[in-house]
Amino acid sequence: MGIENKTIVIGHKNPDTDSICSVIAYTELKNKTADGEFVACRAGEISSETQYVLDAFEAEVPELVTEVAEDQAVILIDHNEKTQCADGADDAQIIEIIDHHKIGSIETKDPILFRNEPVGCSATIITKMYKEAGVEPDKKTAGLLLSAILSDTLNFRSPTCTDRDVETGRELASIAGVDTDDYAVKMFEAGEKLDGKTAEDIFYSDFKIFEKDDIRFGIGQASFMSQSTLDEARAMITDYIDETLAKDNTKMAFFMLTSIQDQSSRMIYAGEGAREALESGFDVTQNADEEGILLKDVVSRKKQLVPALMETV
Amino acid sequence: MGIENKTIVIGHKNPDTDSICSVIAYTELKNKTADGEFVACRAGEISSETQYVLDAFEAEVPELVTEVAEDQAVILIDHNEKTQCADGADDAQIIEIIDHHKIGSIETKDPILFRNEPVGCSATIITKMYKEAGVEPDKKTAGLLLSAILSDTLNFRSPTCTDRDVETGRELASIAGVDTDDYAVKMFEAGEKLDGKTAEDIFYSDFKIFEKDDIRFGIGQASFMSQSTLDEARAMITDYIDETLAKDNTKMAFFMLTSIQDQSSRMIYAGEGAREALESGFDVTQNADEEGILLKDVVSRKKQLVPALMETV
Repeated sequence: MGIENKTIVIGHKNPDTDSICSVIAYTELKNKTADGEFVACRAGEISSETQYVLDAFEAEVPELVTEVAEDQAVILIDHNEKTQCADGADDAQIIEIIDHHKIGSIETKDPILFRNEPVGCSATIITKMYKEAGVEPDKKTAGLLLSAILSDTLNFRSPTCTDRDVETGRELASIAGVDTDDYAVKMFEAGEKLDGKTAEDIFYSDFKIFEKDDIRFGIGQASFMSQSTLDEARAMITDYIDETLAKDNTKMAFFMLTSIQDQSSRMIYAGEGAREALESGFDVTQNADEEGILLKDVVSRKKQLVPALMETV
Repeated sequence: MGIENKTIVIGHKNPDTDSICSVIAYTELKNKTADGEFVACRAGEISSETQYVLDAFEAEVPELVTEVAEDQAVILIDHNEKTQCADGADDAQIIEIIDHHKIGSIETKDPILFRNEPVGCSATIITKMYKEAGVEPDKKTAGLLLSAILSDTLNFRSPTCTDRDVETGRELASIAGVDTDDYAVKMFEAGEKLDGKTAEDIFYSDFKIFEKDDIRFGIGQASFMSQSTLDEARAMITDYIDETLAKDNTKMAFFMLTSIQDQSSRMIYAGEGAREALESGFDVTQNADEEGILLKDVVSRKKQLVPALMETV
């Protein structure tokens, strides 16, 4: 399929849902409002979260582009760092950039449209551009743009989420006819599937060892949008955590199963004194059961859990 | 005057009219629509063209800033290259960039508003931002924005001028109550003053020597928006050009007095065969007088004059 005479619209490597959905939506807007032909492209494999979104709104997967020719016209979406570009895209004929990150290393030969706005998601900017062009996104496009916003802002809960993202998301949800909370859970579940992962994979994917007065203790963490996936991981970690003491030569082991929706962490623990250390550090009497202790409003290992345990272990 | 707690709004070094007027207008918009205090600043001396504009609309000269502290909040207008920043501004807390040039070397630590559009003047973008904010520029601000557009686009004649610049300029002229052609001539006259310049200064400011078959000939060029300044330079060059033959050891000398408004060049010449070379190369019979030959539609030394003279000298 020849794209030589078309303009490539493309997101960053390791594309997330914003980098795919904003590309599809912006390509559609350009094809409706600008001269020339624009083609939606991607710089890498589709994640399972994004695949769920494309299936939900019956959207086509953008074309995979691994190498961009120097004379190829390109529009960069959701990135403006050379290192994040599809190979060659930073040296191609960049004609536009739409992004919401810090200003990065890309330079151009000519004046171009570079629209970078400090919002939570590129799709929020693209939706504004639809409005400015007087084009109403259809149900499918609204669904894609909404999905990008929910994904980037963790269903409006991330610290990067702005009022504009929330307002834009609400408008798109109404066009797409989507209940955002319900849809977001399903989308994140699709993205968080534990398929094939072992308890060991989950436990050590983000794990650190600390020491206080010759007491070695380990803390792992995994964050989830989906409660059912968190529960699945909880069962696996509960069965596994005892093994890690000998393996890591630690006296205690802790694992934070953090719920982004609830802003809380379910603590799984092992080793002598581990439960007591948690009980001394936090008010946990109401929230403990045989599968761990629930710490409300605790989501940061570095800022919340480690300082408390350093006092109490 | 303390600016520590205010946000500096500043243009590039060697400020032109756009870099001063867009700064004043955008500072006013921010003070009307955003939290905090914003102060119009400049990174260098005001040109005589810009001084004419500030006088015409009774606007204050922005504050001179030669060094920007690292923790100072700044908004960059009309530039996004480190080399063009006021000293220190590229390492300060850049919170916004509004520009119409190629994407340059500035990087930021955080996501910011970077609005770069491929139009002829930053003031065209700032005027759009007034509209988006629902704020009508007053007569003075409209006059400043209009002046920036006329200056950057050479009264709508430069190749960088877009339809948006023309449309925006017309709207601003109507608010400011300004006849653009008349005003532009006065503004450019103020900027092109020959004060203190000698004929030698003008002749050699942009001068090159060429050779064809052992015939050496020199061509100088100066461009003018103002006919009266062009006429003044014409009288000086006409009296002077004969001297240059011995000085440069050339057989012929040519000087192009280019009128940007008319897209033509008045040719002053000296040396045996110079007039004939021009007459053979161009159809000049109708446009010659004792003070030179008028070449209509000839403005480029490189692309138009040199190729013709290479054939005919």
